Amino acid sequence: MKIKIADYPTLNKEWDKKETEEKTKKILKRIGKLQNKMYAQNKFSILVVLQGIDASGKDGITKGLLKYCNPLGVKIASFKKPTENEYAHDFLWRVHQVVPRKGELQIFIRSHYEDILVPTVEKYIPSEVIEKRYEVINDFENLLESNGTKVLKFFLNVSKEVQKERLMERIEVKEKHWKHKDGDWDTREKFDEYLGVYERIINTCNRCPWHIVPSDTNWQKLYYVAEVVLNTLEDLDLKWPGLVTEKFRDQIKK
Amino acid sequence: MKIKIADYPTLNKEWDKKETEEKTKKILKRIGKLQNKMYAQNKFSILVVLQGIDASGKDGITKGLLKYCNPLGVKIASFKKPTENEYAHDFLWRVHQVVPRKGELQIFIRSHYEDILVPTVEKYIPSEVIEKRYEVINDFENLLESNGTKVLKFFLNVSKEVQKERLMERIEVKEKHWKHKDGDWDTREKFDEYLGVYERIINTCNRCPWHIVPSDTNWQKLYYVAEVVLNTLEDLDLKWPGLVTEKFRDQIKK
Repeated sequence: MKIKIADYPTLNKEWDKKETEEKTKKILKRIGKLQNKMYAQNKFSILVVLQGIDASGKDGITKGLLKYCNPLGVKIASFKKPTENEYAHDFLWRVHQVVPRKGELQIFIRSHYEDILVPTVEKYIPSEVIEKRYEVINDFENLLESNGTKVLKFFLNVSKEVQKERLMERIEVKEKHWKHKDGDWDTREKFDEYLGVYERIINTCNRCPWHIVPSDTNWQKLYYVAEVVLNTLEDLDLKWPGLVTEKFRDQIKK
Repeated sequence: MKIKIADYPTLNKEWDKKETEEKTKKILKRIGKLQNKMYAQNKFSILVVLQGIDASGKDGITKGLLKYCNPLGVKIASFKKPTENEYAHDFLWRVHQVVPRKGELQIFIRSHYEDILVPTVEKYIPSEVIEKRYEVINDFENLLESNGTKVLKFFLNVSKEVQKERLMERIEVKEKHWKHKDGDWDTREKFDEYLGVYERIINTCNRCPWHIVPSDTNWQKLYYVAEVVLNTLEDLDLKWPGLVTEKFRDQIKK
């Protein structure tokens, strides 16, 4: 059945803030413990793909999610407009270079999905070329999964009103000026067009499924994403590696 | 005057643990705030070089130091034995690729100094080749500084006894097995030789000065390093960037 973004809330009215924040803190601490074990084991990895319109809170989630993690086993890639050299390659070339190595928890702030979203709305690549990317992305994510990487994809679902508030803050609050880009307001005018492409992506690039996150508040979206990441870590067969030694052979536990 | 490592304590007996930990927490929070500002400003950067023998606690410092930082503005590079491709280049080639970009706080876990330390003790590169590296490293760090990067170098000074305790833990504690390497015990037999080379490095590659850190306890070394990093951040001319806009020109504060 076709997923419709409009059916998903941007705010979950039943959740209690204080209670949720307490749960989130416990979840984040547990993520930290398991992430460190995953890093030590050097076998599995997790790729968290964060997608959403401007000011949907991708940076904030990244910061929250990693609070108790071992920074040595964490990597962040933030994708901006491709450079000339990147454009001279296929669109997955730059992405493939920064996928997680074994043991790592990797965050993508934006991702290969931008290479469908932007050219579709801005119409600067022929539609048949864009069309192929849906299939190619499914294959690419499949390749990663076959190598022990769990691919978790999140669409940060924020309302048009809340997005406006957040963009306005960047103009009004001194400490947020650096995040302001005039272009974000142009993109905002195409809000619904972008949502349409997202909907198509969510329904088509679904070999690794999407999570649609209520993102009008920071506490709700962090709770939501953290829970999915924790469940994924819990489901991995994480084990502390045994002692590898020639010198201390009598110490090896049978 | 020549610096002698033996004149520096591995443990500072006058420091009170509880009091120091409280001070450290405040320092780390302040580092988080300023690091985020440095990231926003996108002008300066800091390179923290952590050097020390095995089990001197380089990973632990990294984790502690970054506790309140914005992970988007942080990068960690951990240098291992060079690959064949890295060996086929000059020794700074792989290092240069991962220096901080503007705005970043970068941690080096081991560094280009390994390319003096290991070949000197293990004697697999002619001494005249190693000799040149002292000079070349001074020039390299000078290049980084001239581009707005503060280079902070730390030698984690741990006693031979405490090192042994920590290496033993890796054999005895299940959760630490993965850190064990037989080779660390071979290196330990050359403890004093390594210290000798460190002393030469500290006295020669001193265009950006070294800090010799009491590293027998985690709380002392974290306090020491954090304070140097905070002082460096405080000394930078950090400013929130102004609003850059055409669309909202009337909002720009004079």
